Amino acid sequence: MTETRRRSGGRAARQAARMHAHVERVPFLTRTLAPLAVLSEGGLATLEGNAERILSEVGVEFHDAPDALERFAGAGADVKGERVRFPHGLCRSLVQATAPEQFTQVARNRANDVVFGGQGTIFAPAYGSPFVRDLDDGRRYGTIEDFRNFVRLANASPWLHHSGGTVCEPVDLPVNKRHYDMVAAHLILGDKPFMGSVTHPQRARDTVDMARIVFGADVVEQNTVVFSLINANSPLVWDSTMLGAAQAYAEANQAVMMTPFILAGAMSPATVAATAAQTLAESLAGMAYVQLVRPGAPVVLGSFASSMSMQSGAPTFGTPEPALVLYAMAALARRLGVPFRSGGALTAAKIPDAQAAYESANTMQPTMLGGTNFVLHAAGWLEGGLTMGYEKFVLDADQLGMWHSFARGVDLSENGQALDAFLTNEPGTHFLGHPHTLANFETAFYRSPVADNSSFEQWESEGANDAAQRANAQWKRALAEYEPPPLDDAIREELDEWIEQRKASFPDSDV
Amino acid sequence: MTETRRRSGGRAARQAARMHAHVERVPFLTRTLAPLAVLSEGGLATLEGNAERILSEVGVEFHDAPDALERFAGAGADVKGERVRFPHGLCRSLVQATAPEQFTQVARNRANDVVFGGQGTIFAPAYGSPFVRDLDDGRRYGTIEDFRNFVRLANASPWLHHSGGTVCEPVDLPVNKRHYDMVAAHLILGDKPFMGSVTHPQRARDTVDMARIVFGADVVEQNTVVFSLINANSPLVWDSTMLGAAQAYAEANQAVMMTPFILAGAMSPATVAATAAQTLAESLAGMAYVQLVRPGAPVVLGSFASSMSMQSGAPTFGTPEPALVLYAMAALARRLGVPFRSGGALTAAKIPDAQAAYESANTMQPTMLGGTNFVLHAAGWLEGGLTMGYEKFVLDADQLGMWHSFARGVDLSENGQALDAFLTNEPGTHFLGHPHTLANFETAFYRSPVADNSSFEQWESEGANDAAQRANAQWKRALAEYEPPPLDDAIREELDEWIEQRKASFPDSDV
Repeated sequence: MTETRRRSGGRAARQAARMHAHVERVPFLTRTLAPLAVLSEGGLATLEGNAERILSEVGVEFHDAPDALERFAGAGADVKGERVRFPHGLCRSLVQATAPEQFTQVARNRANDVVFGGQGTIFAPAYGSPFVRDLDDGRRYGTIEDFRNFVRLANASPWLHHSGGTVCEPVDLPVNKRHYDMVAAHLILGDKPFMGSVTHPQRARDTVDMARIVFGADVVEQNTVVFSLINANSPLVWDSTMLGAAQAYAEANQAVMMTPFILAGAMSPATVAATAAQTLAESLAGMAYVQLVRPGAPVVLGSFASSMSMQSGAPTFGTPEPALVLYAMAALARRLGVPFRSGGALTAAKIPDAQAAYESANTMQPTMLGGTNFVLHAAGWLEGGLTMGYEKFVLDADQLGMWHSFARGVDLSENGQALDAFLTNEPGTHFLGHPHTLANFETAFYRSPVADNSSFEQWESEGANDAAQRANAQWKRALAEYEPPPLDDAIREELDEWIEQRKASFPDSDV
Repeated sequence: MTETRRRSGGRAARQAARMHAHVERVPFLTRTLAPLAVLSEGGLATLEGNAERILSEVGVEFHDAPDALERFAGAGADVKGERVRFPHGLCRSLVQATAPEQFTQVARNRANDVVFGGQGTIFAPAYGSPFVRDLDDGRRYGTIEDFRNFVRLANASPWLHHSGGTVCEPVDLPVNKRHYDMVAAHLILGDKPFMGSVTHPQRARDTVDMARIVFGADVVEQNTVVFSLINANSPLVWDSTMLGAAQAYAEANQAVMMTPFILAGAMSPATVAATAAQTLAESLAGMAYVQLVRPGAPVVLGSFASSMSMQSGAPTFGTPEPALVLYAMAALARRLGVPFRSGGALTAAKIPDAQAAYESANTMQPTMLGGTNFVLHAAGWLEGGLTMGYEKFVLDADQLGMWHSFARGVDLSENGQALDAFLTNEPGTHFLGHPHTLANFETAFYRSPVADNSSFEQWESEGANDAAQRANAQWKRALAEYEPPPLDDAIREELDEWIEQRKASFPDSDV
């Protein structure tokens, strides 16, 4: 298998060279700044204590999951019916005993491997929307072609480190088989790390099987090549579908993020401190389960918390309260010692307007300044996750590019301090023609490909376009120019045949 | 004078009651979180050392300012022609010896007094644009009626603590007399603190005279009632117009912010560390001058740094490099011990689109998380400051409201922790009807008046408006409902007569 995975040269090599020419490779971002603290260590300890009280006094329910109940009882938890109450510190010690603080997800192109944990931050596209939107055709159900387009866009962008998972729902395919085409798109059209199916334990196993064909079974056994999103059913419930998928991945030593999805005020009490304590409790229970299934299997503490309109019940994004939850959760994950997932370019806006950008920025800032290791929904998200936007994707990816510059911090090298420039330039004389400026102008400032910085007159003469209109031209060009990375013909053939056989082995269904 | 400034009751009292009914009063924002550090104390000391080398080895020029040259020579600086070289530490020690760490600007309504320094943050509207824009009439030159409208909007918003200064240029009035109507608008139409004229020393003195009529001469002598923006002519030049205005204000014990306005790459070397060191050097020289004019006169360290397109030379906003400068400058001001001004809702976008919001958020985040005391341009700014936007003002003010919630941090009270809510709620049961939620839902989450959080279908049925269209309706309603705060008739009469006499005493001119 290893043999056949080598590049065959010729066409593939030429393709690789072309890719290299126009795609800057940035495998993941390394933050250099200390995170912003919104709580003291004492305050964080209070939240940890509250999480333990929730786990021990209220407990967590595991629905239709006899395996989980049995494992937890064996580990010393108090199991009554489907309710599991955890002695103080049990989940925490299970996680800290065996869960890795850092792990690597291997990509088909090893130059794209990503490291979860520490100062690393990995950007992945938005996930799970049934609809897509662009300026030309408006809002519509997503198709497998839309799915493939977003895989292409994520792989073409230097600022996304991950191909993502359900970049949109391909609703033109049957529910019980669409994961074959989704995973195949990630494996064939891109070469960045990707996410697996979680809608049924068998689909998780299918994902791992497909990865084995492409990566080699030995590589999959010894490495994390699939990373998947497992959501709790808040408050304080894990259900069998998601747990079953988590179990399947853990058994194959693949990584999962155990993520409560909390609309605060509905699925948790309507305060920041309560939402954070509950998130920690739920994720701890999920991560402990994974460690019982396979000690050492990589897990990520996930948090997705939105505020809500207490008038209409609608989720709201970019508000101050979820930002505070995010900062708190990032600190709690660091204290626990596992990688942290949260944030993204979240918004309730239907279109990529000022609301969308303000809300997205208000989420991405705590995402980055709090210190998040994996950022799902980093590009494309609209309408509370119901819609994946082509223009929004381009605008968000540009922001991700800026974060790469910001994360480097202040350059205090001799060139950065530029004292010689001052000493050789008279007051009142501009620095535009100074040798220091000429030596630095190419890289001095982040260049946005979508921001319009020209004069009003020039902007007007060019059509008075807004940011979304400029983004529209860019995703079209990116798709037109995209060439998938090389994949050995034999592997491609094996994968296609395997999928064909699997699809033919049982009838289509929309559940 | 004090006597006549009392409210006369009757109509004024009724007005006051009505104002109170619909304007929540938030005199200024108090941050509770420690600022984000982008540099170690050692890194900051390096920048301070570089500023001292710039001041001592290169020096600063003071153009057409014999008074400044004389004062600096007397203080021990090396003066050659208009160039002043400062012995290491001279400016710093002059500032630290007498400049206050905190000071209060008194407002006409004392409930609106603002404190500069410490954990306080004061939001003021954008400043200085010749153009205005709204969705109905597009972009056009500003008039005095536009000016008055933005004063009304700033005074009507609970989230702006300051009436601002040149909220737009009233280009329909002669240049040499428009300051009378501008200052009068701040004094008559609003009762929040305001900024004075700086385009000529005499106009600064006129501003103080008008304040004396409205506040009383004794109040002005003993308090800061005018705050003004003094810009350096970077690199390393202060000119006579601005310095003369600073001198006039300092002599009257009124506050000024000494602000280098730096387009990095043109007016400073194209790096973060160099731009910060130069800003510190220029502002130190300016603040030292103010302290020589009147020891103890309140001064603010100002920083305005933008990146630029190294292709076109156009200023760019919301990029990572100016954000880093802002964080660094805020820390340097704290180490120096003077209040700090920077930031705002800055953007190069021509319209309030996604670019505008992303760039504005990318500037407001470091503004707030770095710890800024006075935020000019906090609402309305478009097109690099060339245009004041009505819709942008509304969208930005909404963001300022969110910062008030964020700045309070995480509530760890018993109600905030909500442990009782957890202990009385079963797993799988929503919290929507829980007594804790019912007790908190009114105040749990910031409510945006312009964000649309409704379903796609409802949003579409309501016209599929973008954020700017929703903001359009809001500024119109705010202006329609606005009632100016009460002002004693005798004061108003005295002010009007004084202005009339001054205007009649010299011919109109457009310089």
